[in-house]
Amino acid sequence: MTGLPQRFLPPVLIGLLVWFVPPPDEVQLQAWRLLAIFLATIAGILAKTLPLGAMALLGVIASMLTGVLKPDEALAGFGYPVVWLIVSAFFISRGFLATGLGLRIAYLFMAAVGKKSLGLAYSMIGVDLVLAPAIPSNTARCGGVICPILQSVAVSFGSRPDGASARRLGAFLIKASYQGGVVVSGMFLTSMAGNPMAAGLAAGMGIEIDWTTWFLAALVPGLLCLMTGPWILYRIYPPEITETAGAARMARRKLEEMGPLKPSERIMLGTFVLLLILWVFGGSLGISSAVAALTGLAILLLTGTLRWKDILGERGAWDALIWFGVLINLASHLNSMGLIPWFGDQLAAVLGEGHWMKSFVLLSLLYFYSHYLFAGNTTHISSMYAPFLAVAIAVGTPPLLAALVLGYFSNLFSGMTHYGTGPAPVFFGTGYVEMGDWWKLGGLLSVVNILIYFVAGGLWWKVLGIW
Amino acid sequence: MTGLPQRFLPPVLIGLLVWFVPPPDEVQLQAWRLLAIFLATIAGILAKTLPLGAMALLGVIASMLTGVLKPDEALAGFGYPVVWLIVSAFFISRGFLATGLGLRIAYLFMAAVGKKSLGLAYSMIGVDLVLAPAIPSNTARCGGVICPILQSVAVSFGSRPDGASARRLGAFLIKASYQGGVVVSGMFLTSMAGNPMAAGLAAGMGIEIDWTTWFLAALVPGLLCLMTGPWILYRIYPPEITETAGAARMARRKLEEMGPLKPSERIMLGTFVLLLILWVFGGSLGISSAVAALTGLAILLLTGTLRWKDILGERGAWDALIWFGVLINLASHLNSMGLIPWFGDQLAAVLGEGHWMKSFVLLSLLYFYSHYLFAGNTTHISSMYAPFLAVAIAVGTPPLLAALVLGYFSNLFSGMTHYGTGPAPVFFGTGYVEMGDWWKLGGLLSVVNILIYFVAGGLWWKVLGIW
Repeated sequence: MTGLPQRFLPPVLIGLLVWFVPPPDEVQLQAWRLLAIFLATIAGILAKTLPLGAMALLGVIASMLTGVLKPDEALAGFGYPVVWLIVSAFFISRGFLATGLGLRIAYLFMAAVGKKSLGLAYSMIGVDLVLAPAIPSNTARCGGVICPILQSVAVSFGSRPDGASARRLGAFLIKASYQGGVVVSGMFLTSMAGNPMAAGLAAGMGIEIDWTTWFLAALVPGLLCLMTGPWILYRIYPPEITETAGAARMARRKLEEMGPLKPSERIMLGTFVLLLILWVFGGSLGISSAVAALTGLAILLLTGTLRWKDILGERGAWDALIWFGVLINLASHLNSMGLIPWFGDQLAAVLGEGHWMKSFVLLSLLYFYSHYLFAGNTTHISSMYAPFLAVAIAVGTPPLLAALVLGYFSNLFSGMTHYGTGPAPVFFGTGYVEMGDWWKLGGLLSVVNILIYFVAGGLWWKVLGIW
Repeated sequence: MTGLPQRFLPPVLIGLLVWFVPPPDEVQLQAWRLLAIFLATIAGILAKTLPLGAMALLGVIASMLTGVLKPDEALAGFGYPVVWLIVSAFFISRGFLATGLGLRIAYLFMAAVGKKSLGLAYSMIGVDLVLAPAIPSNTARCGGVICPILQSVAVSFGSRPDGASARRLGAFLIKASYQGGVVVSGMFLTSMAGNPMAAGLAAGMGIEIDWTTWFLAALVPGLLCLMTGPWILYRIYPPEITETAGAARMARRKLEEMGPLKPSERIMLGTFVLLLILWVFGGSLGISSAVAALTGLAILLLTGTLRWKDILGERGAWDALIWFGVLINLASHLNSMGLIPWFGDQLAAVLGEGHWMKSFVLLSLLYFYSHYLFAGNTTHISSMYAPFLAVAIAVGTPPLLAALVLGYFSNLFSGMTHYGTGPAPVFFGTGYVEMGDWWKLGGLLSVVNILIYFVAGGLWWKVLGIW
């Protein structure tokens, strides 16, 4: 229990401070107190007082004990369909990894386009892109499937971490895949746990973003970023080895060892295809994305592809249930109690006159680069997405445009640091890329990505009629 | 995947049959279809098509896919406070066992009254009674703490299972403790996972049962059963060894080895006392039993007595979240759609005229002895509690009386078989008691328990003003 007292200071101090400061005239006392609890929770998460889920749980318990929320209001988040969308996706992704289908797809890509080191980087991004819709844990996807493959490829070419040989091949592959993963996470509603949270927060403000809307709008800028990122890195941070025919051969050998698709892999593949169909077309059948995900889970359970004990042991899913269920619910209450719209109006007044575009660009850059201060996407989203969206709307930004851009930026911003998202410590921890390079390259690519999203994305969204 | 097809027949057949039978005039089509899904789920649970939690999850997914319930209605159960009461209690009980406090309490009782074999049986019931309010998993409590102690005591007296020496000591201790556990499970709202479910179903019919009401009404008949049970077994199923001073000595030695209370045990004990205080008096402070339990959990997390990874790995709690959250929600919808009251009226009409007492005794006996058909309490409660309560009320039984009696019987009925509740297979599985004896003694004690609850309980509940 050493160190507990200090770690407890930030949430306690911030909570008490806000609680006892008298609220502005326009804000109800209950809303202000909920804000105190919410900010204390976020402070505890940032200060790592306790793990994310534990802090979230303490926050919601505090809201009940203080009478700020009634128990059924406080716990309602655990029954939100959007929360179960992400929980089921965690379960489904376990099937992806456990059946070996994820690995097989990775080797297929490698065998096809892995003959050059640039192709190898693109192949890993391709794998990521294919797995992403059904694996919302980018840590499981990038850290569990892609990173281990890259490491073994690099070593097989004599490129080892922490030395002169790191730059031979490994450093380029690791950095390119990591940056690709950051973009891929933003491309589907279901490719990062925080995306449905952003969509849920937007829904609380009357902006509906379904699976297809999210994906369609991300398609053009996302693919552009995925194409340019590795190419830029290949120019400015090149590997010494450019021919990697051995990697493609290794992939083909691994595929031969695997043999034909196992029955469990077939079921997994079929479920995945069905899931994609339901996510894209389910709306017209009245099947929401959450019900689609739960249906996929049902198929895996019925066919024995996943056993109940696998489900019960999937800690990541239960963790997501708690932090997601709490944070989105607290944020929703802050919104419905009028606090977030009020904040939006205040800040909009400060931003003053002028075209919304200027203010929105400013806001989204602030949202983006404040991520230097955050470890992980979800804390950032849960604390800043809703208020920034409220301000953006208050200054006149088309609501859906604002919700989507902030949603995409909620992924892109994690490319800058070695702690910006779950897989960051995994990739950085391989030791291939020095910290200075990691930050410099990440910073550079953040500018490229932002430009692509604003310019090419802006045009594309105009075509789609989003603004 | 062998055997899947056969196991899938019962739920599929029952579901389709009810779905396609036209509903009676008074019943809405939606309600009837929900009944089909509910009965199919129960059939799958009874047929062990898939584990309890998995079947429950499939049931709720079916309700959404068929459009019978909207996603937010179908998933709302995961946000019910009563569900989180039981989930938190599971987490708290992990602290009880992990800190060693549970074992210490057991040895304290043994050292105090364990000098004779009858005293030893009472001492284990005492332990059970003390642990019960905060350990809703009777399997963890009886199977995890008590049964292992009894086995080692029996063996230390030369009484081994499956042979002539079984009856020397082990058989009596095992059977007496098991029967005691059945009664203890019924004494607190929080001593068995199904009790809050019964209370929640009653609440759906407008009958509020708080922690204190449940406990107070159970106190007199419960204690009487706990006193008479071991005594009767001691007469008709006596151990050959009656003096067990060695056991008390062993307990004292174990206590010496344990040394003074560890800090974590102190925190656990303090949390437990606070929990009891909040459960008994929290109502007047506006702290519901669920918030009390969550507060206890918060203390254990804040003090580091439980770590977040312990919580995430507590499969029993997540399992309970799923099956409890689904079944109570489905049953609640059946009730609010008017199906359960309608069923109650129908059966009440069949039962015909006469005093409510006659009808209610008949109903509760039917409820009790139908447990020969059930493995585990919760399936029985989720499928039969609400309709039987509805019938009881329809024939004129005072509602609170009916809700409590059926609630207590939901525990007592599991004394009859070796599969009637979670710890049954654990105790029976020790091999000390032959199956014939297990059933005969269980049958006999069921009559004793019912008589005590009806006669002594009836008087006590009159005194309390429950009827």
